[in-house]
Amino acid sequence: MRKIAVVVTARPSYSRIKTVLEAVRNHPDLELQLIVSASALLSRYGSAVDVIEHDGFEIAARAYTVLEGDKPELMAKTTGMGMIELATVFGNLKPDIVVTVADRYETMATAVTAAYMNIPLAHVQGGEITGNIDEKVRHAITKLADYHLVASDKAAERVLRLGEDAASVFVTGCPSIDLAVDVLENPAFDFDPYAKYGGVGAAPDLSSGYLVVLQHPVTTDFTHARDHILETLHAVRACGLPSLCFWPNTDAGSDGTSSGIRYFREAFGSENIHFFKNMEPQDFLRLLRNSRAIVGNSSVAIRECAYLGVPAINIGDRQVGRDRGLNVMDVAYDRDDILRTIEVHCGKGRHAQDLIYGDGTAGAQIADILARVELRFHKMLPF
Amino acid sequence: MRKIAVVVTARPSYSRIKTVLEAVRNHPDLELQLIVSASALLSRYGSAVDVIEHDGFEIAARAYTVLEGDKPELMAKTTGMGMIELATVFGNLKPDIVVTVADRYETMATAVTAAYMNIPLAHVQGGEITGNIDEKVRHAITKLADYHLVASDKAAERVLRLGEDAASVFVTGCPSIDLAVDVLENPAFDFDPYAKYGGVGAAPDLSSGYLVVLQHPVTTDFTHARDHILETLHAVRACGLPSLCFWPNTDAGSDGTSSGIRYFREAFGSENIHFFKNMEPQDFLRLLRNSRAIVGNSSVAIRECAYLGVPAINIGDRQVGRDRGLNVMDVAYDRDDILRTIEVHCGKGRHAQDLIYGDGTAGAQIADILARVELRFHKMLPF
Amino acid sequence: MRKIAVVVTARPSYSRIKTVLEAVRNHPDLELQLIVSASALLSRYGSAVDVIEHDGFEIAARAYTVLEGDKPELMAKTTGMGMIELATVFGNLKPDIVVTVADRYETMATAVTAAYMNIPLAHVQGGEITGNIDEKVRHAITKLADYHLVASDKAAERVLRLGEDAASVFVTGCPSIDLAVDVLENPAFDFDPYAKYGGVGAAPDLSSGYLVVLQHPVTTDFTHARDHILETLHAVRACGLPSLCFWPNTDAGSDGTSSGIRYFREAFGSENIHFFKNMEPQDFLRLLRNSRAIVGNSSVAIRECAYLGVPAINIGDRQVGRDRGLNVMDVAYDRDDILRTIEVHCGKGRHAQDLIYGDGTAGAQIADILARVELRFHKMLPF
Amino acid sequence: MRKIAVVVTARPSYSRIKTVLEAVRNHPDLELQLIVSASALLSRYGSAVDVIEHDGFEIAARAYTVLEGDKPELMAKTTGMGMIELATVFGNLKPDIVVTVADRYETMATAVTAAYMNIPLAHVQGGEITGNIDEKVRHAITKLADYHLVASDKAAERVLRLGEDAASVFVTGCPSIDLAVDVLENPAFDFDPYAKYGGVGAAPDLSSGYLVVLQHPVTTDFTHARDHILETLHAVRACGLPSLCFWPNTDAGSDGTSSGIRYFREAFGSENIHFFKNMEPQDFLRLLRNSRAIVGNSSVAIRECAYLGVPAINIGDRQVGRDRGLNVMDVAYDRDDILRTIEVHCGKGRHAQDLIYGDGTAGAQIADILARVELRFHKMLPF
Repeated sequence: MRKIAVVVTARPSYSRIKTVLEAVRNHPDLELQLIVSASALLSRYGSAVDVIEHDGFEIAARAYTVLEGDKPELMAKTTGMGMIELATVFGNLKPDIVVTVADRYETMATAVTAAYMNIPLAHVQGGEITGNIDEKVRHAITKLADYHLVASDKAAERVLRLGEDAASVFVTGCPSIDLAVDVLENPAFDFDPYAKYGGVGAAPDLSSGYLVVLQHPVTTDFTHARDHILETLHAVRACGLPSLCFWPNTDAGSDGTSSGIRYFREAFGSENIHFFKNMEPQDFLRLLRNSRAIVGNSSVAIRECAYLGVPAINIGDRQVGRDRGLNVMDVAYDRDDILRTIEVHCGKGRHAQDLIYGDGTAGAQIADILARVELRFHKMLPF
Repeated sequence: MRKIAVVVTARPSYSRIKTVLEAVRNHPDLELQLIVSASALLSRYGSAVDVIEHDGFEIAARAYTVLEGDKPELMAKTTGMGMIELATVFGNLKPDIVVTVADRYETMATAVTAAYMNIPLAHVQGGEITGNIDEKVRHAITKLADYHLVASDKAAERVLRLGEDAASVFVTGCPSIDLAVDVLENPAFDFDPYAKYGGVGAAPDLSSGYLVVLQHPVTTDFTHARDHILETLHAVRACGLPSLCFWPNTDAGSDGTSSGIRYFREAFGSENIHFFKNMEPQDFLRLLRNSRAIVGNSSVAIRECAYLGVPAINIGDRQVGRDRGLNVMDVAYDRDDILRTIEVHCGKGRHAQDLIYGDGTAGAQIADILARVELRFHKMLPF
Repeated sequence: MRKIAVVVTARPSYSRIKTVLEAVRNHPDLELQLIVSASALLSRYGSAVDVIEHDGFEIAARAYTVLEGDKPELMAKTTGMGMIELATVFGNLKPDIVVTVADRYETMATAVTAAYMNIPLAHVQGGEITGNIDEKVRHAITKLADYHLVASDKAAERVLRLGEDAASVFVTGCPSIDLAVDVLENPAFDFDPYAKYGGVGAAPDLSSGYLVVLQHPVTTDFTHARDHILETLHAVRACGLPSLCFWPNTDAGSDGTSSGIRYFREAFGSENIHFFKNMEPQDFLRLLRNSRAIVGNSSVAIRECAYLGVPAINIGDRQVGRDRGLNVMDVAYDRDDILRTIEVHCGKGRHAQDLIYGDGTAGAQIADILARVELRFHKMLPF
Repeated sequence: MRKIAVVVTARPSYSRIKTVLEAVRNHPDLELQLIVSASALLSRYGSAVDVIEHDGFEIAARAYTVLEGDKPELMAKTTGMGMIELATVFGNLKPDIVVTVADRYETMATAVTAAYMNIPLAHVQGGEITGNIDEKVRHAITKLADYHLVASDKAAERVLRLGEDAASVFVTGCPSIDLAVDVLENPAFDFDPYAKYGGVGAAPDLSSGYLVVLQHPVTTDFTHARDHILETLHAVRACGLPSLCFWPNTDAGSDGTSSGIRYFREAFGSENIHFFKNMEPQDFLRLLRNSRAIVGNSSVAIRECAYLGVPAINIGDRQVGRDRGLNVMDVAYDRDDILRTIEVHCGKGRHAQDLIYGDGTAGAQIADILARVELRFHKMLPF
């Protein structure tokens, strides 16, 4: 049995890896070692760990690594603490392969620790392009990783151009798309989001359409996070559509975004807006599928919503450079611009499906690859 | 005044950056912030910090980061501790640019911390190829760095192919070569190494030629470090030539190498071998210049010895892939192979000079570049 | 100039040391080195650091040490991180004496670090008795400390019985009482708490009397923290009196208490309760002075309210063993018991002043002592 | 089965707890969880871990915590790292009781971590008096501990006077004495120390008597450690008796002591001195039993040598205040004083046995106590 350690560090990372976790757990030649760390353990960021356990996964280790505070240097300290903790975890679990997901800053701890302990490292979602610190993190992890499980042909091409061995690069699609297969087949709502997920604010009637709002702080610009979310909330309030807004996951600037949301609620009320902390991925996708549009800067808008055909109003430069389908409209951090784009695009209905980020079988493909690749941790630039 | 923080983490790194430190300190538009950390602070690894102070540099901060022990996971923990400590140091010093040197595992702490704190990062000696964990570290740092100060045209080409902006890549030569200029001009010995540096073992007469031995553990193979050094020492003893052997710098396996040296001394004596802990770079180069050959796996054999024309017997795969001149002969970890190569090549005298790693002006070039580059920390893959 | 480093780790600790900070800063022979760390830096716990800066103190260093999460083991990790950070801070500042305040778990980091670095350690508020982990922390710090600045004669007697040298024990009163001198002399309200401090919930009319509610989680019983605060809030709601409730400061269980408050607000509303995050000490004392009673488990109820003559309804065992005046009534974690006691005692008016915790000159006394004590860090049990 | 976690942090601590480990392992109601950390894991300090495994103990967890370097602040950082690591270890192992041994600085990590995690803490060898930082550490741990397993009646009296509950204090004798029972019954040498333990230096004939030398740096005075050991070595060399010298265990100043030993060997030779790194406790005691005297500042000279009746020449103030039998002669850090005392006392033969530190049954007594005490972690000063 090959032991596969997967480190989940945040709510959105879980959605992106869930079908991989299932496929590894169910694979006859693989043993899943699920490690939950960083903001995925914290109630302030939606307690992804509770969702994970509710989904029936056994957690092999928890690594608390987040140093609380709003200075950028705490991102470095949190990553350092991650290495200290994960070295112990990997030393105890002795995995054959470590899997790291995407490009959040704290995933660098997973990648460096595995590399220094001579454990083969698999990287899911490398080769993409975005516009902030994630960009540096993602490609640095590519250079530390031994296997690359990428979402699109373009991503594969970039990983190859970065000097990786063609035999180590696999185009599997993004596992987050796998979750949308069932949603597309059974789009009807089967739950009451207010009853099931609580949250605060108004409880607007959703039957004639609504917006989903999800905006993360841009980490290299964290002091403006509070202003940015306020622009969005003013636009959403002005449009008058029922809106379901989600709290951001952790980052150096998340206090700014959270503070902006709290301030807005107290100062301006929220007659048409309800605020959630977290939602099970399946429910969230069904919510998206039935929405008029998604507003914010989440990559869900680019990826899953391409597959689902949901219009996406993408704010600011967090997703700059990311390959996108026709469902995406870009706007600035400007309440008027945001409002205008909502008004123009939210009456047009759904877009056609775009398979740019996968066909819904990524999880199974990745488990098969992890079961059969040769274990190795040496590599050398070919040029 | 632009503040330039340079983090020196080990004895060999200091030699590679010394002329940069001098040029930055003397530059009218720059202020040097010298940070000494990791094994550069430890007496077991030659107390580079004492050499640095003796050379007249003021140390702005010391960061003790080395977790003692011989498990690979301590490389990860030491790097994590490096991030925790350097985040505080950078937060206090507020540098405009951070400079990191080469590719030792703990330099990842410098690179990640600067990147996460949005401080522009300059990387000296990227774009090279070797055969171990350094390979992953070096190219990952390239993806985190904003400026690349490389040693050779081939290195520049590799950094460009890794997707870095041509405007951020500068071929300066390796600063370690700068130290050899004066040595080549004034090659005569001006000191007695035994009297000046102490050390232990025999004190063989050096007047009719001698070997220099310098062998580091190969970090991804640390359990064999003890066997490897024993093969070398047996060959050196058997050849009978006066030999000057240096202790290795820190790595997960250095205890193995050090233990091998201690065991060899007790078990087999060392009639023709003297052991040093450290030596000022200038003296070391003059020692090399006047030697018959260098034996071991140090990159000094590849770089400085190319410029100096000293024959190099390179053992094992630590330097595999590194661009080399005609002065280098490769051998296996095998006492017979090493002995035979010493006997064949040590009577032939010096090789012609090779400028593959620079012309001796790298320090000054790098200071000028740091003074004039635009300060920035955003980048994006161009492909 | 003798350098006096004071480490402030939490909002309530600041109130207890503020007049010491002023007296040290103003003393001709002393230089204040103010270090802010742990929850005192965090917005979730009231950003004491902002109050400190607003009060005109210069901050010599900030040490972010709080590992976020709700497991007791994170108290140990946070303390460990405190040692790692404070060792650097003390190494940079080179204080002649370090001052640590009271008995919160993270103050152990201050005490151990100073002791191990051979820096004389002064402990404010030793020798008291309470009923939880603070008890162990407080007396362990007494055994690490070189000077004891205690609040009461009974505390002094206990420190002496613990084997401390009589020459190192000084009864100064509690510095928090100093802040109440002016309040007692000028009791009239000079601010609108809603306007000045924001907060959430109802804004009941305060003119005919009100309660102050302040309840911290009991750290060795953190899973019950949520239940405990709910009992209190139900009683406060049932009594119908205008009530001003404060969020707790950090502890392993604070998430439980905070979660209880949030749940109560959503589920039961809060028509007679307003919730504050923080308040300047002076304003808080004036608020207390004019209240009908304080409800909860804060030591303010025992100390400052003795001096101010405010009735205190003390819930649970957090203050068990602490010397108390006649203003204190003890009740269980039981909404009926709490409600009954509120109803009985809140119509009786203020109590007589009790000087059990000092006469209002502690800050000045402590500064004088720090200026004149012999510097030493050796001691030995006398029995 | 009650789970008993014992943390061993150094070579001498292992000798002091070995019979407890055996008795716990063999007790029908107890499960031993042996944790090895700090210098007990490091080859520089004698690799106690190898001895432990050779003795047949299973190691449940290893915690690497030592930050290398010679500054006092690294004692604080090492202790902090100990808390970070041990919190994870205790979280995984979930012991019912944690046992900490004696008073070395890093044991504070064990004590604080257990206390903060609400795990009942047993302290072996509290209540004693010495003259350095150990003094603060030992009594602070007493205030954190829930059970006290002390070596002598005087120690018990002190722990009681520190306010501990009489029901929590047990006079068991020191477990290190247990190891000497067999030695006293079978005193004859059954091994050749040179052949069995290697080491370096001369190999003097031991048949007509010899000295044992064991000197640790005094941690609050670490810069003088090198001078201190040199005084001792000069005296030992001058007396001309065959001498067996042991390297010190880790402390902030151990580099000074080690450096002094290395310097002495190179500069003055060592015709009558052999140097060992480590020795199995049983062999070491037999070596002591047959020696003319022990020279240095080890507590072995005070404890085991009282039971064995071996003359002890105790240098400096490291053992000041420790209760001692008539076998101990105190001298200053002065080569003449040391030499004179060796010459006077080493011809007199052995002293009478003194049971001041126990009768050889401590291990069994302690296991019985750990099996039957009530589990609790709350306490309060009784005065």
